[in-house]
Amino acid sequence: MKTVVVKIGGEVVDSPEMDAIAADVRVLVEGGNRVTIVHGGGPQATALQRSLGIETRMVAGRRYTDEATLEVMKNVVAGRVNVDVCAHLIKNGVLGVGLHGASGLAVAARRRPPRVMAGAGPDPVDLGLVGDVVGFNLPLLGDLWARGYVPVLACLGCDDKGQLLNINGDTVASQLAAALRADALVLVTSAPGVLRDIRDPGSRVPRIDHAAFERGVADGSIFGGMIPKLEESFAVIHEGARSVVIVGGLGPGDLARAVLEPGSVGTVLLA
Amino acid sequence: MKTVVVKIGGEVVDSPEMDAIAADVRVLVEGGNRVTIVHGGGPQATALQRSLGIETRMVAGRRYTDEATLEVMKNVVAGRVNVDVCAHLIKNGVLGVGLHGASGLAVAARRRPPRVMAGAGPDPVDLGLVGDVVGFNLPLLGDLWARGYVPVLACLGCDDKGQLLNINGDTVASQLAAALRADALVLVTSAPGVLRDIRDPGSRVPRIDHAAFERGVADGSIFGGMIPKLEESFAVIHEGARSVVIVGGLGPGDLARAVLEPGSVGTVLLA
Repeated sequence: MKTVVVKIGGEVVDSPEMDAIAADVRVLVEGGNRVTIVHGGGPQATALQRSLGIETRMVAGRRYTDEATLEVMKNVVAGRVNVDVCAHLIKNGVLGVGLHGASGLAVAARRRPPRVMAGAGPDPVDLGLVGDVVGFNLPLLGDLWARGYVPVLACLGCDDKGQLLNINGDTVASQLAAALRADALVLVTSAPGVLRDIRDPGSRVPRIDHAAFERGVADGSIFGGMIPKLEESFAVIHEGARSVVIVGGLGPGDLARAVLEPGSVGTVLLA
Repeated sequence: MKTVVVKIGGEVVDSPEMDAIAADVRVLVEGGNRVTIVHGGGPQATALQRSLGIETRMVAGRRYTDEATLEVMKNVVAGRVNVDVCAHLIKNGVLGVGLHGASGLAVAARRRPPRVMAGAGPDPVDLGLVGDVVGFNLPLLGDLWARGYVPVLACLGCDDKGQLLNINGDTVASQLAAALRADALVLVTSAPGVLRDIRDPGSRVPRIDHAAFERGVADGSIFGGMIPKLEESFAVIHEGARSVVIVGGLGPGDLARAVLEPGSVGTVLLA
């Protein structure tokens, strides 16, 4: 029995990958594993903002979450995208239970205080209605798993006064995986894992530990955006998750194999 | 211990009444009662449709639910309004768990087949992605009550293929109350109950049974829109609910009294 957190971005929910993922979630649940899905909704939120003519306010080069942006997030992330993920699961014979931060305080958060940020000058930066995770309602998740449900968490936190807060989906998934000491945090990305040669999908690295990661950075075979992604993932392992699996372009059976036969799909990061 | 279903329209969620309602839900839950909230989101959906320039398509004088309308419902009803109801509960010290139809198939539905409708000619009318309730996930609700949560149901159903369907909030609440054989279905309306004289709030009728209703219709003291509302409510009682309470303009303590001291607030309909 494995405890698994699967993070999917909004772009994945609207892609053909979603059906393969939902079918494999069923395989995992029927195998007795405890699966939780965490999703974002960035592209859908941007599209709705554009349709409504809401301008993205930038502060110190970062997106500022004002009231109007938060309303869009409530609509899109807790609403449309969460509904669609659950609908995909039903279509594939498994029951998800959608949760946003204010639903059972599933994602308890507090507003991030203004802080000095790299490259943003000496003054503390206030990003608006953005939250840091304080904790999760793990007993609620436990009850849902025990009944065979798949909790589907929208990345919206809520403080103890009922104020909703915008939180990055990767952050929610990572912190949940750490809190659960999950056997695997599966990050569904646009890349099929770590590649030795970015132009060659056949050069996939099945497993990597921190020492190998450092060697790869030193010899230049790991570079660009993959460096911070791997750094963050190793931090999740440091905080308690057993492994992180980076996958992408999932076809039928891939997600289940990535979890049940570590190393067979994508790249597994180990301590 | 009472089983109570509280129906609130979208307009109530955005009104000052909502805080009084949330505070009283806490009173009811702390008293060991099993409370479920069912909400709509009609005004908010209409506002978002207008902002997006989506035209309401009418068929035989009724609203037609096309894909674009359903997307708006997912956003608004399952998203923004559901989040806000749960947030109000948290602010008042009680934990709601928001559920839409696809969340644990909380509201199982099937698409309404085209049917001949009164005043719409001889041909069957197809209202689009509109559903009829097939059933509720009562075990899920039971688990949530047992843990002290308040299920908060958005009025969106889902069929067993994962197709979301638009359903009237009053219908969801009524059918849930009947399925639960609820002690009370509380309908929060714009009127403070049945009045003997529409101009005099002091003429409130505290209790009414079906015989008194028929007498009131005959002598003209019950008229207009109150007739179908009461007829529908008596049908809910016929289908299994113990009582229906019509309330409106709720202040602090009113909802709790309406449930715990039947007849003290609004109008109680009895078999």
